[in-house]
Amino acid sequence: MTGIYSAPTRLERHRQQFPALTNKAYFNFGGQGTLPQASLDAIQKAYEYIQQHGPFSASVNGWIIEEANQTRMAIASELGAPVETITLTEDVTVGCNIAMWGIDWQPGDHLLLTDCEHPGIVAIAQEIARRFKVEVSTCPIMDTLNQGDPTAIIAQHLQKTTRLVVLSHLLWNTGQVLPVQEIVDACRSHSTGSQMIRVLVDAAQSVGSLPLNLTELGADFYAFTGHKWWCGPEGLGGLYVRPDAIESISPTFIGWRGILPNATGKPSWKPDAQRFEVATSAYPLYAGLRAAIATHQQWGTHQERYEQICQMSEYLWQRLSQLEFVRCLCTSPPQAGLVSFVLTNGQSHQQLVQFLEQQSCMLRTIYNPNCVRACVHYFTLRQEVDQLVKEIESYQVA
Amino acid sequence: MTGIYSAPTRLERHRQQFPALTNKAYFNFGGQGTLPQASLDAIQKAYEYIQQHGPFSASVNGWIIEEANQTRMAIASELGAPVETITLTEDVTVGCNIAMWGIDWQPGDHLLLTDCEHPGIVAIAQEIARRFKVEVSTCPIMDTLNQGDPTAIIAQHLQKTTRLVVLSHLLWNTGQVLPVQEIVDACRSHSTGSQMIRVLVDAAQSVGSLPLNLTELGADFYAFTGHKWWCGPEGLGGLYVRPDAIESISPTFIGWRGILPNATGKPSWKPDAQRFEVATSAYPLYAGLRAAIATHQQWGTHQERYEQICQMSEYLWQRLSQLEFVRCLCTSPPQAGLVSFVLTNGQSHQQLVQFLEQQSCMLRTIYNPNCVRACVHYFTLRQEVDQLVKEIESYQVA
Repeated sequence: MTGIYSAPTRLERHRQQFPALTNKAYFNFGGQGTLPQASLDAIQKAYEYIQQHGPFSASVNGWIIEEANQTRMAIASELGAPVETITLTEDVTVGCNIAMWGIDWQPGDHLLLTDCEHPGIVAIAQEIARRFKVEVSTCPIMDTLNQGDPTAIIAQHLQKTTRLVVLSHLLWNTGQVLPVQEIVDACRSHSTGSQMIRVLVDAAQSVGSLPLNLTELGADFYAFTGHKWWCGPEGLGGLYVRPDAIESISPTFIGWRGILPNATGKPSWKPDAQRFEVATSAYPLYAGLRAAIATHQQWGTHQERYEQICQMSEYLWQRLSQLEFVRCLCTSPPQAGLVSFVLTNGQSHQQLVQFLEQQSCMLRTIYNPNCVRACVHYFTLRQEVDQLVKEIESYQVA
Repeated sequence: MTGIYSAPTRLERHRQQFPALTNKAYFNFGGQGTLPQASLDAIQKAYEYIQQHGPFSASVNGWIIEEANQTRMAIASELGAPVETITLTEDVTVGCNIAMWGIDWQPGDHLLLTDCEHPGIVAIAQEIARRFKVEVSTCPIMDTLNQGDPTAIIAQHLQKTTRLVVLSHLLWNTGQVLPVQEIVDACRSHSTGSQMIRVLVDAAQSVGSLPLNLTELGADFYAFTGHKWWCGPEGLGGLYVRPDAIESISPTFIGWRGILPNATGKPSWKPDAQRFEVATSAYPLYAGLRAAIATHQQWGTHQERYEQICQMSEYLWQRLSQLEFVRCLCTSPPQAGLVSFVLTNGQSHQQLVQFLEQQSCMLRTIYNPNCVRACVHYFTLRQEVDQLVKEIESYQVA
């Protein structure tokens, strides 16, 4: 970034790489990111490569292994993690399923969730509870958005029988960043010699938005997707499995990708996190995700992108806070790109979002807490924020 | 099909829709089918649609629901099954995992496999055995390729405690078609009042090659992929769940796609087979698979395509059988498109396949039984078969 005068021009040039940005003001990065043209081109090229040299041939099969390796390496490098910790998955939810079903649950074991987890994750926990007679409980961290200590609350809810804590790094509903490292430390200090409390992080919102070093962060499992803040293609995500946690879970959904080929007798797992991969996937997406990550790297480092996200979310938060019929959930500037707010004049959030979509402003409602969520990325423009605020004002008048 | 003189011309025109066929003789449909250009175009168009109208918006979210419904309908129609029986999955192995992990296994229950199942499926069974203290056994049907009765062998291996039989419809290694309907009947008649023996079919090789009516076939679960004989994109398959079997399994890997939205308290499953779908997938592939299915329908009905496959595999089988250093595993013409054979002169199968790939003839080796597998589709040409046979002869001389 080369100073305040040239920066906007550079950003506008950068934005031209994202076709979705040309005809709208986009605030749904927490739902799905805008795919760069380079990703789409890479996907197309991969399809053509496969058909030209295969589709099924020794040549293409070797190429797919290399594509997967390169993709795990690109991901690992962004996450500050060794490559052998990365499992490629279809989405973040599959990553959470791998960790949650991988534990050898015993009747009476305890699984702790926060009250801000995604409904899909809650459903996994409830089915595990039913099948294995596991106790599931939920701790209230939603109310710590503006005051209070989520680590203390989680620590208070740990039990002697707790085997897994599931939490999100960046809460999808309120936009709060949880202090994962501190929470992991609390879980470690509550662990007894025989029973380690493992921590699974739902990283749907944090990967691609927060600067990360998973080795330092300390979580055992970190499930993510490429299609939100990384702006990769939908249908490709992953799971980080900490090296000293890999033997604490077993593969559940299993296929040829996770086992050593041509073993006689009992199949044996691959030595690294590839053991959790299952079978045939949409391999052309691998090049698409790498192209998306490379596009962001061209603009700046993790830290630079994160700072830009925070500048822009602070601007949006300020502008929204100035509207008398809007209340932002955060009482101080958000810690990342999610800005959640409510209408205080009794108007319907659903109808506001519908109205905004008609004006080509894309936002979404959240069910719990009942609010509207706007997401800004490092390449969001001040003009887009201004346009959004103007449209929200015009809806209030309409 | 309009007679022997016009047919080749029509077929040659039809083949021009498959870019992979232009530069090779392709015999790996059992590994991956050749994607039609219409599929690639449909995938590209879907990516562009999503970026233009979203990517995440009410408009695109509604479009994705419609895309998924249309895809389930296209699949259901090809399989002779009601649309509500179809779960979309990433691949056939995920479909097998859904059924196998979905059973409420109790210690002492029995799971029966055949000795021709894919290593990934064997690994699932072994992990289920370990976790739930289930007994897994394997029955020898490989040797019934040319004589013997696979139904009788399976029936002999059923136990009072058997809860699931896993078999393939079209064996991936030897090319044998198992009499699934007869086997299902045998399992039904062995079922006691309290315990029904369920049948899971690995349909990796049968969907897109055999004419099917799953309602008549009677299997409880039928797992398939779009990317082999249907020639769709890799990364999209499905699972058929017979209506009266849906309550016999529970979702294991779980996500927002399988549960009813915004339910308060306990999440509840969607009423149909969608309950087994998890979360975000590569949605653009849906249009790609439909385009592939439509491409085949333009050429002929199921029955016409199957008959053409059998004509071509009989021709390949005859030509190979005439080579003195080749023995086909089948002693009579194959029942579908898989033609497996061995070299009787001690030459390496692996090296033969490598040599053939250098000559742009794509085949593969199989590990058990140790053989080479050539697959023909309805659009395989006699000239391709002739070329393959010539190359195999030239390898023998070389």
